[in-house]
Amino acid sequence: MIAPGESLRALREARPLVHQITNYVVMNETANATLALGALPVMAHAPEEVEEMVGLAGALVLNIGTLSEHWVDAMLAAGRRASANGTPIVLDPVGAGATRYRTETSRRLLGELEVTALRGNAGEIATLVGVEAEVRGVESIGGAGDPAELARAAARSFGLVASVTGPVDFVSDGERVLSVANGHELLAAVSGTGCMSTAITGCFLAGKREAPLQAAAEALAAFGVAAEDAAAGAGGPGTFHARLYDALAALEPDALAEQARIEPS
Amino acid sequence: MIAPGESLRALREARPLVHQITNYVVMNETANATLALGALPVMAHAPEEVEEMVGLAGALVLNIGTLSEHWVDAMLAAGRRASANGTPIVLDPVGAGATRYRTETSRRLLGELEVTALRGNAGEIATLVGVEAEVRGVESIGGAGDPAELARAAARSFGLVASVTGPVDFVSDGERVLSVANGHELLAAVSGTGCMSTAITGCFLAGKREAPLQAAAEALAAFGVAAEDAAAGAGGPGTFHARLYDALAALEPDALAEQARIEPS
Amino acid sequence: MIAPGESLRALREARPLVHQITNYVVMNETANATLALGALPVMAHAPEEVEEMVGLAGALVLNIGTLSEHWVDAMLAAGRRASANGTPIVLDPVGAGATRYRTETSRRLLGELEVTALRGNAGEIATLVGVEAEVRGVESIGGAGDPAELARAAARSFGLVASVTGPVDFVSDGERVLSVANGHELLAAVSGTGCMSTAITGCFLAGKREAPLQAAAEALAAFGVAAEDAAAGAGGPGTFHARLYDALAALEPDALAEQARIEPS
Repeated sequence: MIAPGESLRALREARPLVHQITNYVVMNETANATLALGALPVMAHAPEEVEEMVGLAGALVLNIGTLSEHWVDAMLAAGRRASANGTPIVLDPVGAGATRYRTETSRRLLGELEVTALRGNAGEIATLVGVEAEVRGVESIGGAGDPAELARAAARSFGLVASVTGPVDFVSDGERVLSVANGHELLAAVSGTGCMSTAITGCFLAGKREAPLQAAAEALAAFGVAAEDAAAGAGGPGTFHARLYDALAALEPDALAEQARIEPS
Repeated sequence: MIAPGESLRALREARPLVHQITNYVVMNETANATLALGALPVMAHAPEEVEEMVGLAGALVLNIGTLSEHWVDAMLAAGRRASANGTPIVLDPVGAGATRYRTETSRRLLGELEVTALRGNAGEIATLVGVEAEVRGVESIGGAGDPAELARAAARSFGLVASVTGPVDFVSDGERVLSVANGHELLAAVSGTGCMSTAITGCFLAGKREAPLQAAAEALAAFGVAAEDAAAGAGGPGTFHARLYDALAALEPDALAEQARIEPS
Repeated sequence: MIAPGESLRALREARPLVHQITNYVVMNETANATLALGALPVMAHAPEEVEEMVGLAGALVLNIGTLSEHWVDAMLAAGRRASANGTPIVLDPVGAGATRYRTETSRRLLGELEVTALRGNAGEIATLVGVEAEVRGVESIGGAGDPAELARAAARSFGLVASVTGPVDFVSDGERVLSVANGHELLAAVSGTGCMSTAITGCFLAGKREAPLQAAAEALAAFGVAAEDAAAGAGGPGTFHARLYDALAALEPDALAEQARIEPS
């Protein structure tokens, strides 16, 4: 129904800078996903430079996967500047629900910043909207209810676009819900693929102030199509992981428009 | 002699959470090895959450590869809680012997925590038991003596299971010594494979309070068999590295039982 | 004209320890590049051990890609010891020009330490010598002028060997300028390849006090030849990245001497 090919084409022409304050585990992975897709990643967290750096960026990606006090401070400082500038912010509440610190930090970032899009698994998002869910470490184990309704509830609660990813992804702005039925089960066997989908959401939102629902859905479709392409011929999670960057770089706007499975839900 | 296939089968059913406080260089690698094997990794080091996180975990893996004061504090806090809970702790004393700080921190962690298993190369373990050895950075260069005896001596000194890895690995509980003759020389050409073997030791020990000697040996056999499988068809350390995750994910309990070369030493 | 095969042969025999204080994004990558080439990497940044560790090393690599106050302090402490010992220091001013903090920190390190070689892209190096240039995050976008002259100007300004990398690399000691016409465009699609070339410069300079111009050029030729080899058969940036380590490990001194395209400029 919706054709994400044009967004990808525009992204590759603009090559936006995507400032990422993210976790130690996936920094290389999200940088490489950003670069392979066609945008420019930069990681910076020092109080001396985060505000200046985000001023240069088309989007800010915040990810609490290995959070600590100074990093949260950096997220807040960069996020306040981005909020003031109207720069889109994407938040990944990694492990919300596993510990109080992660849940509270996610809520604090949502409360103090103008977050444009929130991307998490069902357990993380359910925790943030107050639904009972099971999160084991950083994995959603179940019990979070209907993911389409969860996306809508989160979008309404926090006034943003919410993406609940899983076997099928659901993206909502509080009114509409789009489903994205791209992806591959090997994504669940590689650490950081959720974080990559958040970074790619940042790439698609970069420099935009309109249509964040569609941009967020397109990002997940692009990542999912790349995963499908990468899985063909992969021997397992390791070779799939390497081929995922190949597939992101090889994504053609026309082919993406054809393979994307975005539907109103 | 011993069949590790059942342990792997049980691990994949339980999917234990393995909390890792490890070094910046290998976080992605140990997370992916843990996930490929079938357990769930989580990295968390903030004082606000380490105790809560380790309370959810089946094992705690500590690795001093890029240590600093706050990270050592986090290891101690998480380790004390794990010790109190009876949660198995696995320690990787990366670079012990290279600098006093690494040697002393390793000894401190061994002294203050109930460490279940210690996994290192010959130089690192020799340093900790007071045998003269040469460690160049984080590599063991030689002179550490008979590795089977070294494993036994370390196990006795510290009251734990000691794994001394190398071309052949030796694992001891202070009485018995098992040799594990699996692995491949390409492991030495990839950064962090020692750290991965430590993480996998954590996976096999997760949730267990009995038979840590066997579990530690099985972990090394599983990792070694995966390395053998990965090496077949690899073009060098980079493609071997990618294929190593494929091989960990593809490990079949029955095939593992057949390929594992664990013997009393 | 110049044959780098002998340097590679000597490096593999000596297996120097290369101490790297680098950024979170690329630590695994530069460790693996160092190891694949034949040297031994070690990452250490704690004030308790940096001076002791650098005392064991053949070279010190400093990289400000994710700098913060304590890491800069560690670079200064290690760098002062290296300067006092005559240990070669290689500096990578990642993102100089993007923020004041990066520009000023680069200048401070250059001012306080005896840096042997500086490796950056045109935008970063231009910023440091005071030429107008555009740096988007950590990428050079253009406007930095003739890269051969830029290398010469940087070498003269700071009294060191300067390497300006790009489609063709230029290396200068302030008098002579060498061009290195090896490499592949896929290098620009993988995060951290610039940082890897800096680490490899450290490997080639390790333990040497003479001919740093030639060693720095040889390092870039070796990395470029490996990239050319890796690109053959790669399906995109991800498989290229894995094959790059294969190619570094497979580099033969004689083949390198033949494939290296180092010329006086």
